[in-house]
Amino acid sequence: MRGEQRLREVGIVGVGHPPFGKYEGSLMDMLCEAAVEALDDAGVKTGAGHGVDQVLVSTMGGSQVNRQTGVASALVDSLNLRPAMAETVENGPASGASAVKLGYMAIASGMCDVVLVVGGERMRVLSGWEATDFVATMLHPEAEYAYGLTLPSFAGMFTRLIMAKYGVTERDLAMVSVKNHENAMFNPSAHIQLVPNLEAITEDEDALTINPYVAEPLHLYDTCPVSDGAAAVVLCALDVRERFARRPIKIAGIGQATDTHVVAEREVPTDLLAVRLAAKRAYAMAGLEPQDIDVAELHDAFTILEVVESEEVGFFPRGEGHLAVRRGETRIGGRIPINTSGGLKAKGHPLGATGVSQIIELVKQLRGEAHGRQVKGAKAGLAVNFGGFGNNVVATILAGEEE
Amino acid sequence: MRGEQRLREVGIVGVGHPPFGKYEGSLMDMLCEAAVEALDDAGVKTGAGHGVDQVLVSTMGGSQVNRQTGVASALVDSLNLRPAMAETVENGPASGASAVKLGYMAIASGMCDVVLVVGGERMRVLSGWEATDFVATMLHPEAEYAYGLTLPSFAGMFTRLIMAKYGVTERDLAMVSVKNHENAMFNPSAHIQLVPNLEAITEDEDALTINPYVAEPLHLYDTCPVSDGAAAVVLCALDVRERFARRPIKIAGIGQATDTHVVAEREVPTDLLAVRLAAKRAYAMAGLEPQDIDVAELHDAFTILEVVESEEVGFFPRGEGHLAVRRGETRIGGRIPINTSGGLKAKGHPLGATGVSQIIELVKQLRGEAHGRQVKGAKAGLAVNFGGFGNNVVATILAGEEE
Repeated sequence: MRGEQRLREVGIVGVGHPPFGKYEGSLMDMLCEAAVEALDDAGVKTGAGHGVDQVLVSTMGGSQVNRQTGVASALVDSLNLRPAMAETVENGPASGASAVKLGYMAIASGMCDVVLVVGGERMRVLSGWEATDFVATMLHPEAEYAYGLTLPSFAGMFTRLIMAKYGVTERDLAMVSVKNHENAMFNPSAHIQLVPNLEAITEDEDALTINPYVAEPLHLYDTCPVSDGAAAVVLCALDVRERFARRPIKIAGIGQATDTHVVAEREVPTDLLAVRLAAKRAYAMAGLEPQDIDVAELHDAFTILEVVESEEVGFFPRGEGHLAVRRGETRIGGRIPINTSGGLKAKGHPLGATGVSQIIELVKQLRGEAHGRQVKGAKAGLAVNFGGFGNNVVATILAGEEE
Repeated sequence: MRGEQRLREVGIVGVGHPPFGKYEGSLMDMLCEAAVEALDDAGVKTGAGHGVDQVLVSTMGGSQVNRQTGVASALVDSLNLRPAMAETVENGPASGASAVKLGYMAIASGMCDVVLVVGGERMRVLSGWEATDFVATMLHPEAEYAYGLTLPSFAGMFTRLIMAKYGVTERDLAMVSVKNHENAMFNPSAHIQLVPNLEAITEDEDALTINPYVAEPLHLYDTCPVSDGAAAVVLCALDVRERFARRPIKIAGIGQATDTHVVAEREVPTDLLAVRLAAKRAYAMAGLEPQDIDVAELHDAFTILEVVESEEVGFFPRGEGHLAVRRGETRIGGRIPINTSGGLKAKGHPLGATGVSQIIELVKQLRGEAHGRQVKGAKAGLAVNFGGFGNNVVATILAGEEE
């Protein structure tokens, strides 16, 4: 945070989160559905006098996969929100949190009062192989992609190093997966609604048949699925909160940091420096410490990432995240519940929607509307949205406003 | 402009504009070259203590054409500006001005002091037909693109209506083209360095051979070329101006507006409502009127657009822009010089770079560094960056700061 002045405060007054999974309509249909749900939740009427100053769309593949550009302008018109300003934002799988950040800035700057952020990805039009290849377009073109590296292969190598260094086991990671699948059972927006049996996917005779290696030592159940999905939030300046139906959940802190693009150039390849620094900045802005956080959404595109991120954001000492998993500390009811939504693992990971979806889960928790997955008395939540293989990370802290 | 507080003031302290044209290197090479030039101009050292808080990249085709995502994060690392925040912004051909707008908000919000904005497009890897098809991905997928509509065909139909309504002639448009080509001769960054002869491209026997119809009544010389190119600016809060080598040129006003996505749905198809409204908002924010503007960069992807935009921004009454062209009022030395840089027509139109490039021309004019194309005593400049077929327009007003 820079400058002398006090930042204008910003909150979230509407959320929309249709189920992730396989979507039959167009990208635009999907974005509209999420947006309308969020606008309805906030009590915003579209058409004349709608009051929405800016629309931001986060999508990683709208152009490359769905071959549509100017998506944000198109969405404004589809929603009858003209002449609102509009831009599309891309930051790999962290696009969603980036769009929320830019929406925050738009309001804090005084240029806007109300911003609609809609993240979405329609990627099931791709085969699994094509989807993996598309996601790999965020790697370094000459130093990484050209050698056939993909995100799962990076995660596999990263997991090997972490296992060797800290004694993390495949079973620890399977426990993360089972926990997130269990949480997703209480989230009607989650893509995958089944709970794998821990023994069946780790110990049983046919464990490797139902849970094969994807990128050894990572299995199928360590890896997020390929999902379509969209999610939307309505942001407003707290000084215009009386315009809306819902009490705002305040955006208390935002931190973001970049790391080397080429993973091999990092001094300690098991460090997720950008996660650490992004979280540190978000805590500083919010005036909070890790122990003040009641619920967290961490970017578990691979189960190992949830474990290492839980250390980098300060919930557990380095190398002990997996021990906390064994003790059940990250389950609902535990010391710091992580990925109550089901996480990317079970809720799904439609890239541009993910960061927005994480923030929506925190809003639901802080509103006390998370139903079967509610963390009792949650007052502050942290989301970590992870771009590249950790080369651009956004951390967002929400804090419930008193009635 | 909303809210109660006075916006934190923002200026431009560095510009980088390598020549547009055909580029042999990668998109990243091109972005780096422009960025380094802008950072050098501002006196910013890269590496530790660089002071750049945020990098924004504007590109329309980085993902679809060059198949690279997360471009902004990659650029931060290539420039040794870690851990600066980074996002890629897309708003069709208005991506550049959108990125500058978001950079403005980042600083005005108090979240950043210094923002680097880099726009770039590497589109000469496409054939002419492929480039036209790529640009058409910003049209409505079902209502426009599916019928084979392209941007030139829209511009052709638009021109027919304007000609019938206001008596604009093909020769008037050729005069716009010749003027912009003449201006480009004094701009070493311009793609095309030749001046067509007005009679030769309009009256002579072989006029249609050297200046064939592209989309009747628009000719080759009415249409911008397909160019590679990148352009960069360094923005800073005016309250930290002492960190920089150059005096800042202030961003005095920004206005943006959207219009219907489907052009056929507009009440008056010859109106460019979003241009009018964006300019109106920019004037209001800057506290200026059209007559206060000394130099303007208008989005002449097609010559007809320069004429109609010059009316919509209030320089000339409706239907009289072409008369002003005939009288030479938009030439350097005329009442309101337009496209002193050569415009999209002659300087080139690398989509994501264009909005940044327009703003750079204004900075050069207001610094008094536009050399052979200098508008004497220019104190305020207006840029109009046009997305879709006018469905998302950004107007930016710069004002020279006194020494």
